[in-house]
Amino acid sequence: MTAATERGWLPDLLYRGGKFESGTAMFADETGRITRFSDSADDRKRAHRLHGKALLPGLVNAHSHAFQRSIRGRTEHRTGSGRDTFWTWREAMYRAANRLSPDDIYAVARMAFLEMLLSGITTVGEFHYLHNAPDGARYEDPNLLAKQVLRAAEETGLRIALLRTAYARAGWQQDPHIGQRRFLTPAPEQYMADTEELRIHISRTCGPGRAWAGVAPHSVRAVPLDYLLAITEYAREKEMPVHMHVAEQPGEVAACLKEHGLRPVELLQRHGILDHRFTAVHAIHLSEEEAAMLGDARARVCACPTTERNLGDGAVPADRLQRAGVGVCFGSDSNVQIDLLEDARELEYHLRMRDLQRAVLTDDCEPESLARRLFTNASATGAASLGASGGILEVGRPADFFAVDLNDPSVAGADEGSLPANVVFGAGRSAIRGTFVGGEALVENGHHALGADIVEQFAGAQRRLWGT
Amino acid sequence: MTAATERGWLPDLLYRGGKFESGTAMFADETGRITRFSDSADDRKRAHRLHGKALLPGLVNAHSHAFQRSIRGRTEHRTGSGRDTFWTWREAMYRAANRLSPDDIYAVARMAFLEMLLSGITTVGEFHYLHNAPDGARYEDPNLLAKQVLRAAEETGLRIALLRTAYARAGWQQDPHIGQRRFLTPAPEQYMADTEELRIHISRTCGPGRAWAGVAPHSVRAVPLDYLLAITEYAREKEMPVHMHVAEQPGEVAACLKEHGLRPVELLQRHGILDHRFTAVHAIHLSEEEAAMLGDARARVCACPTTERNLGDGAVPADRLQRAGVGVCFGSDSNVQIDLLEDARELEYHLRMRDLQRAVLTDDCEPESLARRLFTNASATGAASLGASGGILEVGRPADFFAVDLNDPSVAGADEGSLPANVVFGAGRSAIRGTFVGGEALVENGHHALGADIVEQFAGAQRRLWGT
Repeated sequence: MTAATERGWLPDLLYRGGKFESGTAMFADETGRITRFSDSADDRKRAHRLHGKALLPGLVNAHSHAFQRSIRGRTEHRTGSGRDTFWTWREAMYRAANRLSPDDIYAVARMAFLEMLLSGITTVGEFHYLHNAPDGARYEDPNLLAKQVLRAAEETGLRIALLRTAYARAGWQQDPHIGQRRFLTPAPEQYMADTEELRIHISRTCGPGRAWAGVAPHSVRAVPLDYLLAITEYAREKEMPVHMHVAEQPGEVAACLKEHGLRPVELLQRHGILDHRFTAVHAIHLSEEEAAMLGDARARVCACPTTERNLGDGAVPADRLQRAGVGVCFGSDSNVQIDLLEDARELEYHLRMRDLQRAVLTDDCEPESLARRLFTNASATGAASLGASGGILEVGRPADFFAVDLNDPSVAGADEGSLPANVVFGAGRSAIRGTFVGGEALVENGHHALGADIVEQFAGAQRRLWGT
Repeated sequence: MTAATERGWLPDLLYRGGKFESGTAMFADETGRITRFSDSADDRKRAHRLHGKALLPGLVNAHSHAFQRSIRGRTEHRTGSGRDTFWTWREAMYRAANRLSPDDIYAVARMAFLEMLLSGITTVGEFHYLHNAPDGARYEDPNLLAKQVLRAAEETGLRIALLRTAYARAGWQQDPHIGQRRFLTPAPEQYMADTEELRIHISRTCGPGRAWAGVAPHSVRAVPLDYLLAITEYAREKEMPVHMHVAEQPGEVAACLKEHGLRPVELLQRHGILDHRFTAVHAIHLSEEEAAMLGDARARVCACPTTERNLGDGAVPADRLQRAGVGVCFGSDSNVQIDLLEDARELEYHLRMRDLQRAVLTDDCEPESLARRLFTNASATGAASLGASGGILEVGRPADFFAVDLNDPSVAGADEGSLPANVVFGAGRSAIRGTFVGGEALVENGHHALGADIVEQFAGAQRRLWGT
């Protein structure tokens, strides 16, 4: 390779190996892979100078339902005369889900993905469960809606793991729920055929590492055990990541105990479903034993603290998971906000509020480890969860990163040592000025080339949807 | 008054009377007071068109310790081998407090105030307790440091209530703490003389409504009862607001019970200290009876949810306070983040996490009231707490407001009805593009005229302070 096809960047500070270093230039080849780091005078001159900026590995959003961006701000009120809970919110969400046309889904996904890029996210795990027409009929192309989402990711430049969701029933011994008609794939054979079609479609039409498919049984509530076994076996054969909602609500745990005589993670462990490709999303209502089972299997947990506080789900027991050796990553989930740094601090903050103490998730042997650990959760652990190769700046990995303005009022005055904690605990959206995927600048000066178009189209879709 | 001295603005949406309206122009006179609202074609032409913007009343930050901006990101780690708590954090904060020169205090305050303006805050209540030199000696001018803070506010354009803090002791029957030397004013006579000097200084040197003084007994821990009675009587005479830390930590409640046989609010009520000018800051560890006492006295509570979660203080029982008729406002307190909208949503979210339900602070009679109520807390209630006249856009009040970009990805797609909840639950810093105080645009396009200078000076101060 010659220098002509090489791209390089020289920021004030570069985050690698768990700390910021100054004076290092980073280079990538024409495929967008990092080729080398250098502090030689010649290389520093050759690199594009990013004045007043710190570069950090791109954030990885391991759990999103993009379409829920359309109900942001539309469910923050009482819906009935009783208590409002996750379950009443779900009714409002279903109503929205059933109104979206394929074009709407594309417009809403572009909006969510734009905001992700603007907030430093370079890869998303889209837990996609809208498959059917509003009346429940299959589309001629059963992956029509998934492809709309993929198109939205491709256009914005975000890498995407399309976690294709299997949803078979409202719950054990429960009548079908009309709000779930768009989600349903009653038979595992159908699910696998559809997913396989998508997997091949992606491999033929998307650039390498730009998109890939994953298997996402919705939950133990929505997928019977034999179905679950069939599709996770399929995922194992094809080496796909498996993501599943686990123990988000006490009601789900109670129903699982009733049906199977086991708690959700116990059930998964008993049937060999937990492994290093498995991620339990939420995993809030978790016993000590279940945490150990996840750790033993090298499975991961995806916490979604912003949504979990919004829905009143409860706090992920991250200290328990940490002790069990379980990697925790983050998801923006309902997309009521999209801010993975807020999620990172909240993981810790929820525990501070629970225990009335500070620095809960610090490694006992390393007093300074807290911010670094939370940042790793938001980047490298998310990438590992999705089977992506980003999340760390090192040779051979994709040049996915974001640029923080060191003069932004939310982080100004930090030095190399305090910057990780400043970014995780203090940074506002305005501090994130650039986002690069595969070495390509998708966000510059806080703007994305398609930003105005995406916002306009989304606003139009919202007006149609909500009648104003 | 002629149209020549009149300024007017015509946004897409204007928040007044608890809702957004479109097509309304707002006008102010040359003193910065709102004179009228109009939707006539002539007036709409005359006004400055703010395309794609919504205007909202300026946020009021009722509790700040500006100097603590200098330790942002520098305390998020374990400080010893035991549990980290509020009390270990306090040691780190004291170390910072004792290193700041008068110039540093000015530089750090400007930084904090800049960020407040950029986040839509137009008035701050600065709970100022740095009075003495680092060795505890009185400065020749006992208000030297308060005046540095006032100068910082004046230069940035932020309105300020300088809540001058009385701090007499480490605690009942406790030895003096060396970290508190800069805070101490042992005698109430001295405190009142110093505060009176400041009050007169402000009235002579600051524009009307730009700055004023308040009385701030630090806490029942740090101020003995006779001292407290003397200075609150003084405040009553001069019609000054009284702010006081109350029941932030269980340890404080226990000590008060030991010294007085009463819980903190019970003590204040017993001695007639609670009234409509009194604000209890934090008020976390509060009995049902104490909430009722605050309500009966028409006193207010200032919640600081971001700091309270950071310090592991606990959650303000806002539902209890709401039932008791107590107005709750917000403070950025330690300034680990400055985002009053985040504080607003957190007040509600902490309760959702406590109860595992949603829409907790909704008024039972008005299901849609949640976001409106939280926004009022962040604006009008804060103004009332500080004795300021902002926080509401109506004739006769100051033209203090901020502009939200309706195309910002964090709020795009909202309509008039969903915008309040979108702003409170979803808006990121980038959505706030303009901030106006007394009709003067201090922040335009997300920038303040002094921004670069303030950041540079602050960064220099930080390098000196932290030796990098």
